[in-house]
Amino acid sequence: MNFEEELQKKIRKADEVITSYLPEPKGFPKKIIEAMNYSMTAGGKRVRPILMFESYQMFGGTKAVIEPFMAAIEMIHTQSLIHDDLPAIDNDLYRRGRKTTHAVYGEAMGVLSGDALLNYAYETAMQAFFYPDDTGRTIQAMKILAEKTGIYGMLGGQSVDVENEKNDIQALDKELLDYIYLNKTAALLEAPLMIGAVLGGAGKGEVSCMEQIGTKVGLAFQIQDDILDVTSTMEELGKPVFSDEKNHKTTYVTLLGAEEAARKVQSLTEDAVRLLETLPGEKGFLSQLLLYLAFRKK
Amino acid sequence: MNFEEELQKKIRKADEVITSYLPEPKGFPKKIIEAMNYSMTAGGKRVRPILMFESYQMFGGTKAVIEPFMAAIEMIHTQSLIHDDLPAIDNDLYRRGRKTTHAVYGEAMGVLSGDALLNYAYETAMQAFFYPDDTGRTIQAMKILAEKTGIYGMLGGQSVDVENEKNDIQALDKELLDYIYLNKTAALLEAPLMIGAVLGGAGKGEVSCMEQIGTKVGLAFQIQDDILDVTSTMEELGKPVFSDEKNHKTTYVTLLGAEEAARKVQSLTEDAVRLLETLPGEKGFLSQLLLYLAFRKK
Repeated sequence: MNFEEELQKKIRKADEVITSYLPEPKGFPKKIIEAMNYSMTAGGKRVRPILMFESYQMFGGTKAVIEPFMAAIEMIHTQSLIHDDLPAIDNDLYRRGRKTTHAVYGEAMGVLSGDALLNYAYETAMQAFFYPDDTGRTIQAMKILAEKTGIYGMLGGQSVDVENEKNDIQALDKELLDYIYLNKTAALLEAPLMIGAVLGGAGKGEVSCMEQIGTKVGLAFQIQDDILDVTSTMEELGKPVFSDEKNHKTTYVTLLGAEEAARKVQSLTEDAVRLLETLPGEKGFLSQLLLYLAFRKK
Repeated sequence: MNFEEELQKKIRKADEVITSYLPEPKGFPKKIIEAMNYSMTAGGKRVRPILMFESYQMFGGTKAVIEPFMAAIEMIHTQSLIHDDLPAIDNDLYRRGRKTTHAVYGEAMGVLSGDALLNYAYETAMQAFFYPDDTGRTIQAMKILAEKTGIYGMLGGQSVDVENEKNDIQALDKELLDYIYLNKTAALLEAPLMIGAVLGGAGKGEVSCMEQIGTKVGLAFQIQDDILDVTSTMEELGKPVFSDEKNHKTTYVTLLGAEEAARKVQSLTEDAVRLLETLPGEKGFLSQLLLYLAFRKK
């Protein structure tokens, strides 16, 4: 089985797990549950749950305790997309060729179904306590999930990005841009790698190593986004190109140029793979996945 | 000390606890933290943290493990107000004579700071795990918090309320109205009473009894809201009266008439106090507080 086939198989497996944790649309709150599930089944690549599962397996994890966390991280990622798409933020009516949640269910339900998904992520993660595993590790995993999602993680990065969106190119220096990338994007790749490690029984140093891998891959992933915006065609990318330039957005390409930015993606990804090699366990697929995420063409 | 003085003292104590758990506005995400704290220090009556603390004490609780939960429930209540006030939902620019969060920080930050408060509520509640108390009870308290907040609690009720807001009076029957009141309002009064009981060491039946008290008081509280809208003056209430009629809202008053609605508040509150009397512990203040909440004049 080649990498692409294996990836598709793992996406299907993650889809099954995630779907099994979605609430059933029935009773009085049927509509909000439909809105939640609409966005959860919009066909993402399930990158975060897969990273989590691979990390868990690598450290020897074999149990179902990982599954509620796989669903929870995807719920959090999805809620961030729903709220990003709102008129008050990015005002997007389409995502991956499908109407966004607020475009289908109205803006009020866009706000509330995002809230509901964020909350349901915690309800779902708490189902891990049903399993007779190490409660201390489950608590630790919950804390990582919450911290990487909040103001010292994704939501912090997202808020600073929104705050600066209307500013001039000059207004964002590299330190600020790094803060945004590391939090808005990398934090939610660090979380699944760390949670998989914690629940799989990794030691403190190993968890910290997985966090660093997430940091590097997250940064590479976001810089690759900047590069694709100037090197791709609209046909390849499936969305408008040169949009950063048009929106006067500061990116790694505007700061360093496309070539230097590409070198950065290369070195960050090599670092990440090298770090991964220092750890025990079977990591062939994970290693390929990190390369795939950084060097993707769309 | 009379009840009013005692209540003021308890509000100050709750304020101190809540403030000690607020994040410090510094670093890159300073702005979103400022927006969170702006809404958290807008001078609410801290009803939910006080109910939680009274319930905890009543069952013999004496430790600091209750404090992160007191802050967490107030964060969740506050986030629901921030998002309710958004242009997409109630479009309110003022609350208690003070500008709403989105009116001060912009709509995007209104959305994100609400998300951030909801998430931070869980980060805060998880601090309870630092205390060397009964971990099983802390987990149980976390589950109650999440369940009463989500689609099977507050957010479910809120979503159905928003969905029906533009409908005719005839469209809402009593069953649907009860669903909204029980979830939108009562769920977040049940939660603190139950969490206080669980952490205070209550038995299963006692926790369930506290839940029922919350249900009855929550319903009475919301019906009293309906009554005040038609019996109060704008001066007394501090907001426009007859607004339900103007907005064609179905309420207990439009369904049953003001007199019958008042009898309902009376009987629900008597039931709640009677249930409370069946439980052990010192509950003088809590009993008065339940009466105060139901029969308030504004």
